[in-house]
Amino acid sequence: MKLTVKLLDIANRGVLLHSNDAQFIRVRDGDRVQIADEETGRSVQAHVDTTGSLVEPGVIGVYRPLNDALGADEGTPVEVRSAERPPSLSHIKKKMDGGRFTKEETLDIVKDIISENLSPGEITAYVIASYINGLDMDEVEHLTRATVETGERIQFTRHPVVDKHSIGGVPGNKITLLVVPIIAASGLRIPKTSSRAITGAGGTADLMEVLAPVSFPASEVQKMTEKVGGVIVWGGATNIAPADDKIITYEYPFRIDARGQMLASVMAKKFAVGADIVVIDIPVGRNTKIEDVQEGRKLAREFIELGERLGMRVECALSYGESLVGRTIGPNLEVREALSVLEGATEPNSLIQKSLSISGIALEMAGKAAYGQGFDMAAELLRSGKALEKMRQIIEIQGGDPMVKAEDIVPGEYCFDVRAPHDGYVIELNNRALVTLARLAGSPYDHGAGLDIHAKKGTRVKKGDPIFTIYADREWRLERTIEAGRTLMPVLIEGMVFERVPAERWM
Amino acid sequence: MKLTVKLLDIANRGVLLHSNDAQFIRVRDGDRVQIADEETGRSVQAHVDTTGSLVEPGVIGVYRPLNDALGADEGTPVEVRSAERPPSLSHIKKKMDGGRFTKEETLDIVKDIISENLSPGEITAYVIASYINGLDMDEVEHLTRATVETGERIQFTRHPVVDKHSIGGVPGNKITLLVVPIIAASGLRIPKTSSRAITGAGGTADLMEVLAPVSFPASEVQKMTEKVGGVIVWGGATNIAPADDKIITYEYPFRIDARGQMLASVMAKKFAVGADIVVIDIPVGRNTKIEDVQEGRKLAREFIELGERLGMRVECALSYGESLVGRTIGPNLEVREALSVLEGATEPNSLIQKSLSISGIALEMAGKAAYGQGFDMAAELLRSGKALEKMRQIIEIQGGDPMVKAEDIVPGEYCFDVRAPHDGYVIELNNRALVTLARLAGSPYDHGAGLDIHAKKGTRVKKGDPIFTIYADREWRLERTIEAGRTLMPVLIEGMVFERVPAERWM
Repeated sequence: MKLTVKLLDIANRGVLLHSNDAQFIRVRDGDRVQIADEETGRSVQAHVDTTGSLVEPGVIGVYRPLNDALGADEGTPVEVRSAERPPSLSHIKKKMDGGRFTKEETLDIVKDIISENLSPGEITAYVIASYINGLDMDEVEHLTRATVETGERIQFTRHPVVDKHSIGGVPGNKITLLVVPIIAASGLRIPKTSSRAITGAGGTADLMEVLAPVSFPASEVQKMTEKVGGVIVWGGATNIAPADDKIITYEYPFRIDARGQMLASVMAKKFAVGADIVVIDIPVGRNTKIEDVQEGRKLAREFIELGERLGMRVECALSYGESLVGRTIGPNLEVREALSVLEGATEPNSLIQKSLSISGIALEMAGKAAYGQGFDMAAELLRSGKALEKMRQIIEIQGGDPMVKAEDIVPGEYCFDVRAPHDGYVIELNNRALVTLARLAGSPYDHGAGLDIHAKKGTRVKKGDPIFTIYADREWRLERTIEAGRTLMPVLIEGMVFERVPAERWM
Repeated sequence: MKLTVKLLDIANRGVLLHSNDAQFIRVRDGDRVQIADEETGRSVQAHVDTTGSLVEPGVIGVYRPLNDALGADEGTPVEVRSAERPPSLSHIKKKMDGGRFTKEETLDIVKDIISENLSPGEITAYVIASYINGLDMDEVEHLTRATVETGERIQFTRHPVVDKHSIGGVPGNKITLLVVPIIAASGLRIPKTSSRAITGAGGTADLMEVLAPVSFPASEVQKMTEKVGGVIVWGGATNIAPADDKIITYEYPFRIDARGQMLASVMAKKFAVGADIVVIDIPVGRNTKIEDVQEGRKLAREFIELGERLGMRVECALSYGESLVGRTIGPNLEVREALSVLEGATEPNSLIQKSLSISGIALEMAGKAAYGQGFDMAAELLRSGKALEKMRQIIEIQGGDPMVKAEDIVPGEYCFDVRAPHDGYVIELNNRALVTLARLAGSPYDHGAGLDIHAKKGTRVKKGDPIFTIYADREWRLERTIEAGRTLMPVLIEGMVFERVPAERWM
């Protein structure tokens, strides 16, 4: 895209000192200074960058974000002196050397992350050291509690409060759009905070945003849940567990998903919204986060133990993760699919079965259904239209149009059918390749962009049958996606790699 | 100190995008973009920061250091698109997961560190992962070679070329000021690059700067060495092994000194100056980097093996590291002490013995002296005045005054004697506390600042005898040092902790 250059006056939270001045007060790059404005009485700490040329001796360069705290005018004299290293750095060093974080040390670090008292490099060091040397369950509990304590919390007077989470890794996993209204329709409370897509084609918050606003402070989340039983909001706007969002940012460049951090991340959000009962969906299979059932069980035990330590009852469902849930990927397509099920559609089976199973576990744990009866109860709440009615209330209280119908939600106007090159069985749909295509087509930001999969794994297809359709809101994105599809080869039919075809038909 | 606020327009090598634009081209904080200026044909990569407010949609904020490469004018339209992650990030991730770097991977990373293609957080991740999971000898060799290849090199036509290094950790270790002139006086070449103090009270480059300029490009280092046989310069100015300086910067906040990195750091500098013969001084003892002789021998074997791999002959000397070398700490005091030995002083014994031992090893390795005769030969070069004459040539060729005498170099004008509180033996001088006091007094930046120690460990003292003198160039620094000394208690006499005295006498 075309952008216009502007040389500008902002950057990070640090300050810039001439190297002579830095020597004089005995600080080096990465050290900290205390800056005091005697007129206003304000005082802030900042990391030091040194320069031989960009500021004159006697001048301190103050970046705008830092000056939001300091509030000094141009030309104001300030007192600058070297500041001590925060204890967090020693704690992080201990972890590098194989040590364990205490509760107090964990809280020091989490507070310093939130207040930006640690620099990006220092937070990276924390993330990497914790990833390599790991966190034991005590440390995970400390991290969970510190993450909760340093953010907003919700406390309900009526219990039980239910929550659910999917650890992700399977595309098209739109079950929250069914589970939340089913649970709320049963009379339970389910204040669901969700994420936006990071590397996927759409987080639940991206999906819900098709139907209603999703950004609310924690207090509003509580009020709305008390009124209608459930919400589906974006967690990032609530200031619940804000440290977690920051930590994830520093994991992102390395595509790491450290186990201890992940446990604390999930459970802090459940704990902070006051959940008593938590169902965790763990998709298992090749190309998901959890490769096999043993690994899934181990993770489940960890979630359950952490829940016990925090006073929450946790159950986990290992689910089939090798194939997408339902038939669609991308905001409008997924929302249309979920709404149609609420409206009474009896397909797609994978979406309905999974949503009812997860809902059923929660209904049994909460005592709404007898053991073994949860699935049927969930099915009845869906069949009777009570779940649809509840979803309309949820959409309305979040500020959307409660009368929206599945048919109102349309995919992008530009589309392309990918067809079978010969007769055979679909023996593989590569989830990662499908997600990549959906993202290239514009998902999740272009709501109409995504994929509609007509022939899932195991389906018999004839030459020329459509296997999936690519949708996009912009023609150039569609073209780019088709181009990329030629080399990504997301579908295998009977062991043959699709040949590359130079013309418009690419399979 | 008082500084004046200036809100300014510079920062890091990144660019700032409005979050809408970042979404549109599918990049997040920490991702990379390619920016092309079609008018000039220039194209650069940069890390992305996103903002909701600091730039408008349609505008890209370009920080000044990056624009040095891009050269775009204000208001220029540029093409911006997401760029691929460099392979270095995958290499670093592999090390996090316990893998080993190949030669090619190491070179990728080192090149990306130098070109700032890796962000500070990413370089931190490399440093931390290498520290925690370690580097084996193959990886250390790769790192050494990559560090050499990405910087300036010196190649001498006449051999052998000698070099020495002390791994540090013992204060007052001014032996380079004696070893270099002794070796050069023997007819050998010794192009010594040295560091400045990081956490110590003075690096060799800080000391030499009292006598002459120390900043020269590599080509000048070569020419000067060819003319007079030796130099003592600051390595940071030569662009020899520049990656090493950067890596050390990222180790600094955590005070780590990773073994593999340290081996590569030392040996890359020796290899890059074309050394054939290297003597490594390894101070051993409590409160040094190497706690005991076993650890010292292990490190020595690693230096020797790395030297063999690179075609350099290495010998190591384990030296006594628990007590400072000579009697002084701080630039002027140390230089005065070293010059006085060159001028014929027969004290301090610890400085003379250590300098002659290290010199003797090199003389024997180079074939200048028979085995067992190196020490005596070094002593004769010193006694005869040849080493002094050589030092004058070195000072002159670096642009200093060759006629300088020890007595010309005076410590700071403000001083304070620390005296024995009672009769007894000095049973401990705490090196770290002494270094802290020297730094507080102003060392190494204030050349006159430092300590002169009159009574070393084991000395019998009477009540009121001076144990050491603190010197400073500025009165307020002296006062601050005296104040700090009251709590640091750097000296123990017969097991009694010095009482704290509220008045001027603090022992």
